[in-house]
Amino acid sequence: MNRPHRRERTIDKQARSKSSFFSLPSGQLYNPYRPLEILTPEQVQQIHEASMHILEHTGIRFQDAEALSLWEQAGAKVDHVKQHVWIDRGLLMEWVAKAPQSFTVRARNPQRSRLIGGNAINFFPSAGMVFVRDLGRGHRPGQSSDALELVKLIQMTNVIDFAPVQSVVMHDVPVHRKHLVDQAMSYIHSDKPLLGTSHGRIIAGDGIEMAKIVFGEDLQPERGAVIGGNINVNSPLVYDERMVGGMITYARHGQFTTITPFILAGAMSPITILAAVAQQNAEALAGIALLQIVRAGAPAIYGGFVTNVDMKSGAPSFGTPEGAWALLMGAQLARHYRLPYRGSGSLNTANVPDTQAMGESLWALWPCVLAHTNLVIHAAGWLESGLTISYEKYITDVENLAMMQHFLQGVRWDGDVFALNEIHEVGPAGHHLGTLHTQERFETAFYPSFLADRRNLGTWQAMGAEDSIQRAHKLWQIILDSYEQPPMEVTMHEALSDFVERRACELEHVNLYG
Amino acid sequence: MNRPHRRERTIDKQARSKSSFFSLPSGQLYNPYRPLEILTPEQVQQIHEASMHILEHTGIRFQDAEALSLWEQAGAKVDHVKQHVWIDRGLLMEWVAKAPQSFTVRARNPQRSRLIGGNAINFFPSAGMVFVRDLGRGHRPGQSSDALELVKLIQMTNVIDFAPVQSVVMHDVPVHRKHLVDQAMSYIHSDKPLLGTSHGRIIAGDGIEMAKIVFGEDLQPERGAVIGGNINVNSPLVYDERMVGGMITYARHGQFTTITPFILAGAMSPITILAAVAQQNAEALAGIALLQIVRAGAPAIYGGFVTNVDMKSGAPSFGTPEGAWALLMGAQLARHYRLPYRGSGSLNTANVPDTQAMGESLWALWPCVLAHTNLVIHAAGWLESGLTISYEKYITDVENLAMMQHFLQGVRWDGDVFALNEIHEVGPAGHHLGTLHTQERFETAFYPSFLADRRNLGTWQAMGAEDSIQRAHKLWQIILDSYEQPPMEVTMHEALSDFVERRACELEHVNLYG
Repeated sequence: MNRPHRRERTIDKQARSKSSFFSLPSGQLYNPYRPLEILTPEQVQQIHEASMHILEHTGIRFQDAEALSLWEQAGAKVDHVKQHVWIDRGLLMEWVAKAPQSFTVRARNPQRSRLIGGNAINFFPSAGMVFVRDLGRGHRPGQSSDALELVKLIQMTNVIDFAPVQSVVMHDVPVHRKHLVDQAMSYIHSDKPLLGTSHGRIIAGDGIEMAKIVFGEDLQPERGAVIGGNINVNSPLVYDERMVGGMITYARHGQFTTITPFILAGAMSPITILAAVAQQNAEALAGIALLQIVRAGAPAIYGGFVTNVDMKSGAPSFGTPEGAWALLMGAQLARHYRLPYRGSGSLNTANVPDTQAMGESLWALWPCVLAHTNLVIHAAGWLESGLTISYEKYITDVENLAMMQHFLQGVRWDGDVFALNEIHEVGPAGHHLGTLHTQERFETAFYPSFLADRRNLGTWQAMGAEDSIQRAHKLWQIILDSYEQPPMEVTMHEALSDFVERRACELEHVNLYG
Repeated sequence: MNRPHRRERTIDKQARSKSSFFSLPSGQLYNPYRPLEILTPEQVQQIHEASMHILEHTGIRFQDAEALSLWEQAGAKVDHVKQHVWIDRGLLMEWVAKAPQSFTVRARNPQRSRLIGGNAINFFPSAGMVFVRDLGRGHRPGQSSDALELVKLIQMTNVIDFAPVQSVVMHDVPVHRKHLVDQAMSYIHSDKPLLGTSHGRIIAGDGIEMAKIVFGEDLQPERGAVIGGNINVNSPLVYDERMVGGMITYARHGQFTTITPFILAGAMSPITILAAVAQQNAEALAGIALLQIVRAGAPAIYGGFVTNVDMKSGAPSFGTPEGAWALLMGAQLARHYRLPYRGSGSLNTANVPDTQAMGESLWALWPCVLAHTNLVIHAAGWLESGLTISYEKYITDVENLAMMQHFLQGVRWDGDVFALNEIHEVGPAGHHLGTLHTQERFETAFYPSFLADRRNLGTWQAMGAEDSIQRAHKLWQIILDSYEQPPMEVTMHEALSDFVERRACELEHVNLYG
């Protein structure tokens, strides 16, 4: 673990003062607009019926003895040898109905706590990447130094609501230390709420223990969750032991789990988008019901992540029209069941942060916003189908998030918004730049882009002709130079570090997923 | 004029057969989803009231004697010396109500005729640029050879509904020939509907004459328009002689006009977006009413084009959250008055087709679709704040249009969409790639991207590591090589060419805007 320090580099105050990046607002964002609904109520019902048929007739596999027992006790039909469960719709919906419609995720800085549900929308950075890339250092396997830089970048990004969990795999940290170092790093270098790693009982349990160091021995789940995990179902229709272990552990402590079937239509489900969405619905509801069986009222998020394979290469496709449909349909289903919803921003299949990367990413973000997604995971930084987190891509994505934040704050209707006197006085063919009405509002009237360069071609060329990625490359360095560590009591910091060291020793020869 | 020819280059059939670009669907596109409405009915009424106050109290300038007479005859208060008109709301709305709610624009190929209004959405390419750029030949003033290439590219692009008018200014063509060569070029090399140039009575009148060569002496306006123009009001509150001359000429012949106030909030209107939208509304409605005074029932489109200045450079900004608000509000106003609506896609301020260009362009396109824009002008190719049309940017924009076309076609609900038998037979942990249900649908299940490269990093690098702009550069050349000229009767072709030559002689020493 790095020890606390004040600043790693000299802050370039001048560069910082020039960038509107640092003055982006922070706070709970809501989506005031009506969601885009592409299904009729009858179509929602048809998808529901198909999902119920799947769970009743085909059933679903839970590769975990405790989960099978829980299902059996709840009244489902269970085959322990085949690890197979058939769930009656009445039973299923009775448990699903116990999940809260919304809940709070508490941060160690209470101002950064966030609401999940209703019209709230929250941005979570890209997570779980294997590689990292930037314009200066190139493409490389992630190291702990990269992960630390990313925690800092994200901490400084007001529009990102959550601290990262495993933004990139730390290849220089032994397996039994990774989850410990990762969560401690986020706690120490960020004061935002976070997700833990949810792979199995040991790792999720350690996450709970570290949360207790930060939030107190009694996590007070009635005040909201302080940690949670994201589960990707092994579609089709399999919950493996790691996932189940993690989700049961979090639920038992009243913490939240996002249940996200990851479905490539045509591979992990039938090829039709409606079949993929019906299967997703069956898988997600089964997981959410299990969370409730573990602890009624355990916070749960319905995750939508259906996309399609590329017909030319057979590879996954992201940021597609099919993905947009699936995301919007998933959101309607989640609303139908009164559950919070998770989507993904910044998804793309490009190998470099080019216009394909940007285009696909906005084909992921706009549908998330239109769907009324409550938690947008991978909101910034995703590249190379999720194998890589790119520093420059992160910056270009954050510009879109900041624009969306501004867009969702809505048109201001306060004060002299129509300026009829100015229109009259300036009259036809006049100019409004010099009026008092304009001058008074000039600094704050519009979204202040931190990345766009709107100078004319000649000026832009004379100033070095930097494209958007080159500008992003400079900006993330300025942000890192400006990083300020949020305060943490020395005792808490030491307790986290001590836990990491002690637990890493204990786990050195343990099968983490055993 | 170029004489007709069969093919300019050898078609690279292999390259063509590989690209799904050529199999994009063509046809009338509709938006089946509910529009995104960000105003309450009361807010629509407040903006309406502000606009009425502007026209009644401040008034608006028409720098054209005929327009002033028409307004006076209609009952408005007119000051002929100041060229100023004050319009009572009762009078205004009486005339606005005569504009059709929707209308057809006929193409010389009837299959390419398009509906403007209702839920129809149509894409028009970028127009009126000064420069052209591509990756091979660089940035340069437009020539007639560029304009011809662009007509051909656009003709081959199924998702683009209209032929271009003056996609780029032809610097090698004398002023008095430009509008003639331009319109004849579009007729001869494209069979899509088109807009004419609307700068003054002479130019618009020539447009009507050329339309008669193609559609017959009687243009039969009761069957729909065959030509129209776009007017950018000289905001604030000025219609100059050129604009008025063009719009009166088109309306007199039953042809359509798009009335588009071009407003940079803070310069051509007060800085608040609501003032800009109220002023836009006043300006647009005054123009649409005048069209009806000229000829009741003349097709008219309400154009929304409010954006903001960049606070750092003072330059125009495009693809901003403020622009999105304004576009959505303008659409609600147009629906309130039962008028078709025009917006703009692909707008951006970037100097090169980088991620800024792509990002801002999607911040223009998504709001257009969500607003239920009927005519999306500048849908592809716009660069450098509208000074330049970029070949590669055109291709990247067309990919977004094609994705949007697919998205708007909606989820298919026909046949065995839930595939419950396959889900059951494959079961948990199985794979769907090999099922008959998947194999039968594999070719046509998803939107087939023509530009995205989804191969993994290693393969992509081994194959040359081309980014999206480099791929776009290759693709437009393949498209141009594949160009096939739509058939036209020799007599019509000769009549168009003869008209161009005769009229160019007549106009050589005429002030076109006199």
